[in-house]
Amino acid sequence: MSYNLLKGKRGIIFGALDENSIAWKTAERAHEEGANFVLTNAPIAMRMGQIQELANKTGSEIIPADATSEEDLKALVTRAMELLGGKLDFVLHSIGMSVNVRKGKHYTDQNYDWTAKGWDVSALSFHKVCKTLYQEDAMNPWGSIVALTYMAAQRTFPDYNDMADNKAYLESIARSFGYFFGKDKQVRVNTISQSPTPTTAGKGVKGFDGFISYAEKMSPLGNATAQDCADYTITLFSDLTRKVTMQNLFHDGGFSSTGVSQEVIEHFDN
Amino acid sequence: MSYNLLKGKRGIIFGALDENSIAWKTAERAHEEGANFVLTNAPIAMRMGQIQELANKTGSEIIPADATSEEDLKALVTRAMELLGGKLDFVLHSIGMSVNVRKGKHYTDQNYDWTAKGWDVSALSFHKVCKTLYQEDAMNPWGSIVALTYMAAQRTFPDYNDMADNKAYLESIARSFGYFFGKDKQVRVNTISQSPTPTTAGKGVKGFDGFISYAEKMSPLGNATAQDCADYTITLFSDLTRKVTMQNLFHDGGFSSTGVSQEVIEHFDN
Amino acid sequence: MSYNLLKGKRGIIFGALDENSIAWKTAERAHEEGANFVLTNAPIAMRMGQIQELANKTGSEIIPADATSEEDLKALVTRAMELLGGKLDFVLHSIGMSVNVRKGKHYTDQNYDWTAKGWDVSALSFHKVCKTLYQEDAMNPWGSIVALTYMAAQRTFPDYNDMADNKAYLESIARSFGYFFGKDKQVRVNTISQSPTPTTAGKGVKGFDGFISYAEKMSPLGNATAQDCADYTITLFSDLTRKVTMQNLFHDGGFSSTGVSQEVIEHFDN
Amino acid sequence: MSYNLLKGKRGIIFGALDENSIAWKTAERAHEEGANFVLTNAPIAMRMGQIQELANKTGSEIIPADATSEEDLKALVTRAMELLGGKLDFVLHSIGMSVNVRKGKHYTDQNYDWTAKGWDVSALSFHKVCKTLYQEDAMNPWGSIVALTYMAAQRTFPDYNDMADNKAYLESIARSFGYFFGKDKQVRVNTISQSPTPTTAGKGVKGFDGFISYAEKMSPLGNATAQDCADYTITLFSDLTRKVTMQNLFHDGGFSSTGVSQEVIEHFDN
Repeated sequence: MSYNLLKGKRGIIFGALDENSIAWKTAERAHEEGANFVLTNAPIAMRMGQIQELANKTGSEIIPADATSEEDLKALVTRAMELLGGKLDFVLHSIGMSVNVRKGKHYTDQNYDWTAKGWDVSALSFHKVCKTLYQEDAMNPWGSIVALTYMAAQRTFPDYNDMADNKAYLESIARSFGYFFGKDKQVRVNTISQSPTPTTAGKGVKGFDGFISYAEKMSPLGNATAQDCADYTITLFSDLTRKVTMQNLFHDGGFSSTGVSQEVIEHFDN
Repeated sequence: MSYNLLKGKRGIIFGALDENSIAWKTAERAHEEGANFVLTNAPIAMRMGQIQELANKTGSEIIPADATSEEDLKALVTRAMELLGGKLDFVLHSIGMSVNVRKGKHYTDQNYDWTAKGWDVSALSFHKVCKTLYQEDAMNPWGSIVALTYMAAQRTFPDYNDMADNKAYLESIARSFGYFFGKDKQVRVNTISQSPTPTTAGKGVKGFDGFISYAEKMSPLGNATAQDCADYTITLFSDLTRKVTMQNLFHDGGFSSTGVSQEVIEHFDN
Repeated sequence: MSYNLLKGKRGIIFGALDENSIAWKTAERAHEEGANFVLTNAPIAMRMGQIQELANKTGSEIIPADATSEEDLKALVTRAMELLGGKLDFVLHSIGMSVNVRKGKHYTDQNYDWTAKGWDVSALSFHKVCKTLYQEDAMNPWGSIVALTYMAAQRTFPDYNDMADNKAYLESIARSFGYFFGKDKQVRVNTISQSPTPTTAGKGVKGFDGFISYAEKMSPLGNATAQDCADYTITLFSDLTRKVTMQNLFHDGGFSSTGVSQEVIEHFDN
Repeated sequence: MSYNLLKGKRGIIFGALDENSIAWKTAERAHEEGANFVLTNAPIAMRMGQIQELANKTGSEIIPADATSEEDLKALVTRAMELLGGKLDFVLHSIGMSVNVRKGKHYTDQNYDWTAKGWDVSALSFHKVCKTLYQEDAMNPWGSIVALTYMAAQRTFPDYNDMADNKAYLESIARSFGYFFGKDKQVRVNTISQSPTPTTAGKGVKGFDGFISYAEKMSPLGNATAQDCADYTITLFSDLTRKVTMQNLFHDGGFSSTGVSQEVIEHFDN
């Protein structure tokens, strides 16, 4: 499937880890739609063999960068413009990690060094990406910056831990930076609030299977997959959504607007 | 328990049907807190024996009024001011009824005469009450108008039917009229979005038992009861909340901000 | 510009009045993107000469229908499927009218016959459209239904009058019907909350010029135009947004997420 | 004025700086309502002469504590329970500071060491307070924890800088911790989103005067004052709001639900 929606557009895609990643699927779709882009990930998170496969498939270069490092980001953005031959039209931020989650530390018993690390990687990194793009004047007018988020920013999911607070911060950055990017550069900034998705990262969360099954039953159209999310992201990178900015967009089969579904209520009706 | 929070205040309470009603509990609490008020209900909905008991207990008069009739409302408001000896400080609107629900007509198959009737009774009646109070200049400065609503206005509950849409309209009236009541009369208008409550009316809804059990498990503090709601309503009638207006206030033990609870997820985790 | 995003798709577009209409622009864009569709409007609202021009340009048929009449709607849907050769993939509802606004009746002094009329035309008509499509089983799986709305459903704009409450009801229908359309038909239902737009209808609202100038200054990307809205609507009709449902989507250059802008604050800073 | 709403209740109030502080006014009102409490502030932020005056007036002890230090917080909570003779019923968190704002560093050009410092003081401190109260089992059942926030967490105000993102994080903590505090301790956690308030801290923000004048004109009841906020906070500490939890409560004279006001639109209508 290709509509040439991104023909001639240039971008950077953060966070493709393996073929389950939303960023991976988005890269594949962006390529199909005619875009040229650079792939990037943290040196420590890269599975070089796999991402190289994606690079080959999409004709992309890989530029490792630690998204918490202003220096790395500046080098990345500068090099990406050189490689792609001009300013950028789209950027995808798909980065998140909580040390508290990984180490099984409960929300009420956080280790604050780990909290600070997770906040820097998952939330502040988005500000650093935006700041670099803004200060390097790296975005074309009507460019589009998208970050992935999750509804835990609005409602509590007990196992989502400090990622909930990080996502709330991330979504706020999209609004705050979106204001200045809009005024000063005619660039839009949005977040997509995606269904729980069985990525390699997502699957690590405790209780994930029960939750994804619950979410499936609570979503009138079922959970959105990584592939669905890639499609949706393409529309936000295209020229057809130029006046959408500073929004948090739920892409979740209707979960966010469902108070309860028939299937779920039947579990409790006896 | 009494704090004299409403000492010397005058009001009208719509919708006390029997001792399960939120309006009934609110009348009891308003009386304990020192208020004088008039009780009213639709002639057709009144269970005269029971509401007379409430009137006796709280030293109130009963003035029947059809809340969809501008004529009835004008007579009610005029008579209430006479009986109570002055302008009003608070009004509670606790009125709702869907013919489609009562007759088991599915949301996707509504009878639009019934829809119009339910909208008039459940939603437009609130505008009519506000209009009468506004045009008769019946509210004291810093008075407080409250209507009861339900979260189906934001998220779909499959059995709530057209009441969802009616509550969305009602909440919008609170904002729209709240603007003019604030500017012109220094009066506040809010809605309370209450937990599902086993009132005589609520219990008639299909699937109510399963739903209330689900809501209990989804609310970190448990469902708010009618008694809890009466307490909360008192605070909104008091002088301590003068700058709260045009808000929809969730009073639900945390349901609205809970994505999923541990108890619920465990039903799906196997 | 064409991406063939709607190639082979069939639809109905309500509400094209003249070339300023969002529905008009959407029809033009849907045609460019390869769709076949029927145009419809209320017999009373039609400017036959003009809409015929649009029909000629887009190779469409015109089927007059009163969107408040279940009979008209059934005839429209049936005939549209015949003309287009199959079930529908998209429907646009762009209908709104307040008699209170037209006749200069203030929000606090509504004539309730006019209120009921406006509610029927502007809000309930959307339920009637959905009910007809649902009961006639007229939508293909993954079809998309979109209604246009305005942010007055969330925040008060003093001159928007009862249209605010109507839009709140309309948005609630999108969620309520979206639940059943999702579960039963795999069809999505959303609303687009568009910037104030100088359509022929919009321009009639008192204070519209001052407001549109204010909105322009409050929107980091400027107000979204009717043309922008047409582009955005196309994405929601396409196969790239299949898991977006029951959402109210702000398309407003960032207005909804801007507390105040620098330009506006400077008006008050002295 | 006293209703004895907090008779016999014990608490801790963070953040009273001088008589313009919301925390200061809340302390005065809590005292009038019969509460006993401890006052605390960062050693570095204290103006000892002034806060001693408040302590004398309200019969309170002062315990300096750095709210970013777990050690200080544990000592504070332990000592407060000793001094007050039992577990706590209420806690007010009124703490916020952005180094980027203080030093005039623009949002798009943040110094991330300063960002981290502001996040720790303004947002993470609330988690640390909650964690200490939770782990020390310091709250009585039905106790109430309140933090002050600002609407910049939802909509962008260009001069509010990284405080917007900090407040979004803070509000998320209220939901996340509110879930566990509700389930495990029957304690509620909420945030109050207050009008812009001319506190000593607030007045330092660039463009504050213009903004407060704009907010006044946009709020149908006018801006809520620090005194109003103290009154409202008392209701949230009382036993009358036991089922309100995980909410962000706008206390702003209607600003948050006003799209535009007549006065503001007239500035642009010419």
